[in-house]
Amino acid sequence: MRMNLLEMRPRLEALLAEAGEQALRHFRESLALEDKAEGGLFDPVTVADREVEACLRRGLAQAWPDVGIRGEEFGGDSRDQGCQWLIDPIDGTRAFISGMPLWGILLGLIEDRAPRLGFMHQPYLGETFGGDGQGAWLLRAGRRAALRTRPVDTLAKAVLYTTHPDHFAAADDVARHAALARQVRLSRYGGDCYSYCMLAAGHIHLVAESGLQDYDILPLVPIIEGAGGVVTDWTGQPLRGGGRVLAAADPQLHARALEVLAA
Amino acid sequence: MRMNLLEMRPRLEALLAEAGEQALRHFRESLALEDKAEGGLFDPVTVADREVEACLRRGLAQAWPDVGIRGEEFGGDSRDQGCQWLIDPIDGTRAFISGMPLWGILLGLIEDRAPRLGFMHQPYLGETFGGDGQGAWLLRAGRRAALRTRPVDTLAKAVLYTTHPDHFAAADDVARHAALARQVRLSRYGGDCYSYCMLAAGHIHLVAESGLQDYDILPLVPIIEGAGGVVTDWTGQPLRGGGRVLAAADPQLHARALEVLAA
Repeated sequence: MRMNLLEMRPRLEALLAEAGEQALRHFRESLALEDKAEGGLFDPVTVADREVEACLRRGLAQAWPDVGIRGEEFGGDSRDQGCQWLIDPIDGTRAFISGMPLWGILLGLIEDRAPRLGFMHQPYLGETFGGDGQGAWLLRAGRRAALRTRPVDTLAKAVLYTTHPDHFAAADDVARHAALARQVRLSRYGGDCYSYCMLAAGHIHLVAESGLQDYDILPLVPIIEGAGGVVTDWTGQPLRGGGRVLAAADPQLHARALEVLAA
Repeated sequence: MRMNLLEMRPRLEALLAEAGEQALRHFRESLALEDKAEGGLFDPVTVADREVEACLRRGLAQAWPDVGIRGEEFGGDSRDQGCQWLIDPIDGTRAFISGMPLWGILLGLIEDRAPRLGFMHQPYLGETFGGDGQGAWLLRAGRRAALRTRPVDTLAKAVLYTTHPDHFAAADDVARHAALARQVRLSRYGGDCYSYCMLAAGHIHLVAESGLQDYDILPLVPIIEGAGGVVTDWTGQPLRGGGRVLAAADPQLHARALEVLAA
């Protein structure tokens, strides 16, 4: 199935705004809800996760009944089918429960296992980042701005982000990340999905992570690539799932960072 | 000099909003400006820092000509005078240059070396956190909400934030922080001034940092204390300058965290 991606955009953005309202009902109420969770009933992020994913599933099934849907919360069809929506309802649950507004709702369209269209919606900031691999944009307060990465010619000028040192699955990954961090101008923690959007927008230059799920990263690929960036695994292969991820502002910087991570 | 703190609030909030507009003119333009800085002319955060501090100084001097002013950028009078404004025009400059909206404009009123009134303004989010030691509040979109910390009875339930592991001045501080991080439910990096405000708002429970300047932390003390929190140095003494800081949601949790940091 080939779909005209930009024709789908207004309906998807309206649906993300609706899902964002669901998430905001629980944002910064999280600890109150968590106390109740000690009774074993529910926890706040799970409630937001489920409501957001259910909202997106309803809207997507109504608009595109022939496209499969897979999400973090409710699972879905096999990933090998031709065309499928991929949902991470709340990416950055630890930021969410801490009141920090850098989590996001991720929605991607996967065709033949490759991400074709992707969105990151942050409702507290009123921001929707999107991309289709050819272009990328930020929609905020009704205004749409094109996103472009900002190349830098050496690692020594680059700003690197990763979510948290503990997220590196293997001790070897920690050492590789540390080697990269020593060569850049500035290395920072935090950000989750928001870091990849700041890379697409030209504010930072590298994001290196490991232990990701496919729904954590595939919806962000068309945004990064649409803005001129490069994103692969740590061997330089295109992403078809999760695992280790390296995103860079441009191909040269990507190659330099890959040398360090693969060493 | 004794001033009625709440009477001063509307004028201070209007002044912070004006200064926030100055900062936003440079936010997310930072890397473009940095390229020019290679010619040695200026860098983006310094421009925003100076414009914000100059704006605040003009407004404060006009409204309260008898009160001294000290700021990160332009220095000021001796800190021992009875009554003085303390300004950190952009706290979280690394977040600022990375496009992350968790930096803030800090303004505090110091009387007899003790912080009496404090504000954190984040203009991209449109949030102004404030406190006078007796109460604390968040002003957003014209609505003012009271802030209260959320006590937890054990370290094992607490969420801990610190800005970055490299900010710990001494290796010993790194080890003490790591000991605390091992005992909490969740330890996260990032946040700068924003973490203290999330503690005041009841979303996180501990912030531990070292190597702070007085203008990084003193303006936040009346917010934390006004919301029911406790903030001291790592020996449990009240803050009169920068250095090592421990903020906690309640006195019991503070005592437990202090035992670990002082061990």
